[in-house]
Amino acid sequence: MEVIKLERIQLSSDLSISKTVHGMMHLSGWGLSKEERLTLIKEVLDTGITTFDHADIYGSYQCEALFGEALALEPSLRNKMEIVTKCGIVLESPNRPSHRSHHYDTSKAHIISSVEQSLKNLSVDTIDLLLIHRPDPFMNPEETAAAFDELSRSGKVKNFGVSNFKRSQFNMLQSYVDQPLCTNQIELSPYHLENFEDGTLDLTIEKKTPPMAWSPLAGGKILTGEDEKAVRIRAALKEIGSEIGTDQLDEVIYAWLYNHPANISVIAGSGKIDRIRSAVNAQNFRMDAHQWFTIYQAVIGHDVP
Amino acid sequence: MEVIKLERIQLSSDLSISKTVHGMMHLSGWGLSKEERLTLIKEVLDTGITTFDHADIYGSYQCEALFGEALALEPSLRNKMEIVTKCGIVLESPNRPSHRSHHYDTSKAHIISSVEQSLKNLSVDTIDLLLIHRPDPFMNPEETAAAFDELSRSGKVKNFGVSNFKRSQFNMLQSYVDQPLCTNQIELSPYHLENFEDGTLDLTIEKKTPPMAWSPLAGGKILTGEDEKAVRIRAALKEIGSEIGTDQLDEVIYAWLYNHPANISVIAGSGKIDRIRSAVNAQNFRMDAHQWFTIYQAVIGHDVP
Amino acid sequence: MEVIKLERIQLSSDLSISKTVHGMMHLSGWGLSKEERLTLIKEVLDTGITTFDHADIYGSYQCEALFGEALALEPSLRNKMEIVTKCGIVLESPNRPSHRSHHYDTSKAHIISSVEQSLKNLSVDTIDLLLIHRPDPFMNPEETAAAFDELSRSGKVKNFGVSNFKRSQFNMLQSYVDQPLCTNQIELSPYHLENFEDGTLDLTIEKKTPPMAWSPLAGGKILTGEDEKAVRIRAALKEIGSEIGTDQLDEVIYAWLYNHPANISVIAGSGKIDRIRSAVNAQNFRMDAHQWFTIYQAVIGHDVP
Repeated sequence: MEVIKLERIQLSSDLSISKTVHGMMHLSGWGLSKEERLTLIKEVLDTGITTFDHADIYGSYQCEALFGEALALEPSLRNKMEIVTKCGIVLESPNRPSHRSHHYDTSKAHIISSVEQSLKNLSVDTIDLLLIHRPDPFMNPEETAAAFDELSRSGKVKNFGVSNFKRSQFNMLQSYVDQPLCTNQIELSPYHLENFEDGTLDLTIEKKTPPMAWSPLAGGKILTGEDEKAVRIRAALKEIGSEIGTDQLDEVIYAWLYNHPANISVIAGSGKIDRIRSAVNAQNFRMDAHQWFTIYQAVIGHDVP
Repeated sequence: MEVIKLERIQLSSDLSISKTVHGMMHLSGWGLSKEERLTLIKEVLDTGITTFDHADIYGSYQCEALFGEALALEPSLRNKMEIVTKCGIVLESPNRPSHRSHHYDTSKAHIISSVEQSLKNLSVDTIDLLLIHRPDPFMNPEETAAAFDELSRSGKVKNFGVSNFKRSQFNMLQSYVDQPLCTNQIELSPYHLENFEDGTLDLTIEKKTPPMAWSPLAGGKILTGEDEKAVRIRAALKEIGSEIGTDQLDEVIYAWLYNHPANISVIAGSGKIDRIRSAVNAQNFRMDAHQWFTIYQAVIGHDVP
Repeated sequence: MEVIKLERIQLSSDLSISKTVHGMMHLSGWGLSKEERLTLIKEVLDTGITTFDHADIYGSYQCEALFGEALALEPSLRNKMEIVTKCGIVLESPNRPSHRSHHYDTSKAHIISSVEQSLKNLSVDTIDLLLIHRPDPFMNPEETAAAFDELSRSGKVKNFGVSNFKRSQFNMLQSYVDQPLCTNQIELSPYHLENFEDGTLDLTIEKKTPPMAWSPLAGGKILTGEDEKAVRIRAALKEIGSEIGTDQLDEVIYAWLYNHPANISVIAGSGKIDRIRSAVNAQNFRMDAHQWFTIYQAVIGHDVP
């Protein structure tokens, strides 16, 4: 495979991430031993990916520790990567017997204790980027801001952002928080256009806070779905893939996102290094407006006006 | 009953209101004599409530005068209260034979003449807070701003705000008006989440303009409704009520709003002093995130994501 | 017919347009010879209208040239008019065989070459106002801004704006573009209230960027439609027309838009000078709030709250 110079995206003065991000959401389901996890991390770093996306709750609160355990085998790798994690969701879990229900908690106390647990789990001293996982209808932004201040001062977190925030939520929280919210991690795929259509993506462009795309393949819905929409999208992906030079439909999907001017980074959440390499490889493909809209119009099911 | 120190909410440098507000919308339906209305006002003031919420149109243009008539019996009470009223809706009414239809009017002439009539009706020299009752699709914000200026200069109105405004409407009007719009009176209850979901509440937090909640009990829909949603909400209210220490479901509803970080004041519109005391008493209950979300999720009918 | 002093709307320090605008979208369908087109232009100018609204794509890329051909017969007319045109849509057309599909293109290269072709077609040296025709989900605002800069420097375009942009799209593009976006040309009619209701019109008022209304008669839907809504609107138009002094329903529709405080200019797109004169004449009618809301409520089909 040819050497790829993976693009980077600047999120703040001191943080850039790789345009492809390795997603850890399903790490606990990949059935890997500690050593195999270390091997995977090294193979991923070899592709040029340097950013790993976590959340406290992934794998019912287990994934961070599985990653940290592997990282502890070779701690010098820490300096070659950026670690993103999230907090703010409280899940019922056998691993958190005190949790009474699934809800959100963006209080100062919860955010700080969640980060401290994440640091321990991940075997690291600092989080490069902490995201509030979901907009919290019960959020007290003064509490959230106070948590960010304390975590920033103590060096436990270097940068802050949000996930799944709509415009009013982003603007509201930013108005209370001194640190710039440097990204919004949102669902973006050519199956799920909500954030393209409701102004969420527009705000990331306006505020120059490049978004991170979760579920870029729509959880497999595009590649394997039998609904009319999925079938329509696959036909378009195939057509455009043949023009840009790949018969891998996932590469066409990634390329559709990479070519968008919003500077989207894409979270590829596979345990198979070949799928990750495809996600990276897709950065080589250029798409023109005709090609991009051919896919877009297959998604919406009709011509643009 | 224990002595309650009722919380206050600062709306501007010179105006604070009580966290519970007495709503006058149905005053004309309570069948009270002038003396009974005076007694009710005094009993309400004894609870710690100091804010009374009016509108020109309440009771088909009758309620302000019924209040003013009682207040005139003991004018010194004026100094112990804040008076809120509204204008901008034109109703067909036997009391306004010149009105040809139900519509909105936010012209300078209408706003000023409406306020002058309100002052007369209420037997007071000044309105503490005037709200534009509804967003007016035919609004000329220069006219509205000119009315506010004149009313401000003459001392007839001390503070200004709006009611039922969405974000674009609030930002638009504020951009023309010199005075800060210091509140948005909106429908907020655990039956009607629209303003929680569409960004309206977010903007009140961002702009630090604490909202006033009208119809907090959803006009009785929660307490007596037989639809699936109401039944579901009541079950959650009962469960959380037993945790926080009350079997009065209205108190749980009020507490759900009081505990929200947006600094919501609640308009309790009952003629029965016991119901008003419940609304005040509910300020004693603290709710944690688990408890708040138990009710929230009963409303939306499914888990948060 | 009485002499009418047609109102003007200031869009920028150096651009005002007539409150009625002549729309060129259907010019190629009017079946006029070059000389007849010149006559029509002169008759339109005689009404007080000075603004002509074009787009590169009208008449499958033919209308601009049909206009320019007539204008070339009497080039001095150029100084008596403002020319608006648009770009950003790519259409499949026998006149553009290289176009592979219907899509948008707001790249620097496309905008500049589109404007250069428009100048040639229109037989003019400068465009008074260039609009991006549709919000482009694939827009790179840095490219668009660079195009505007170059067109501004070279004098090929004097002013810039957009069309059919929602709030998030307008704010996003403006944050990248140095020139003020001085209008948003949107669909506004008493059949199509979307832009009244979703905050688009509010933003034009907030930003003091007077909107231009396309399809004010809803493409004839109001005047000839047999659906319940059209029938309801016609009854209201008739009632209010008789009050303000006209039995021409199109004049009542235009008056409904002219009387709105947003400073709306109206694009009348007829090839019949009598219909254009009606659009101009409608500026003489004043509508009060009762009259405006009688039509508004006929549109929404129920009372305002």
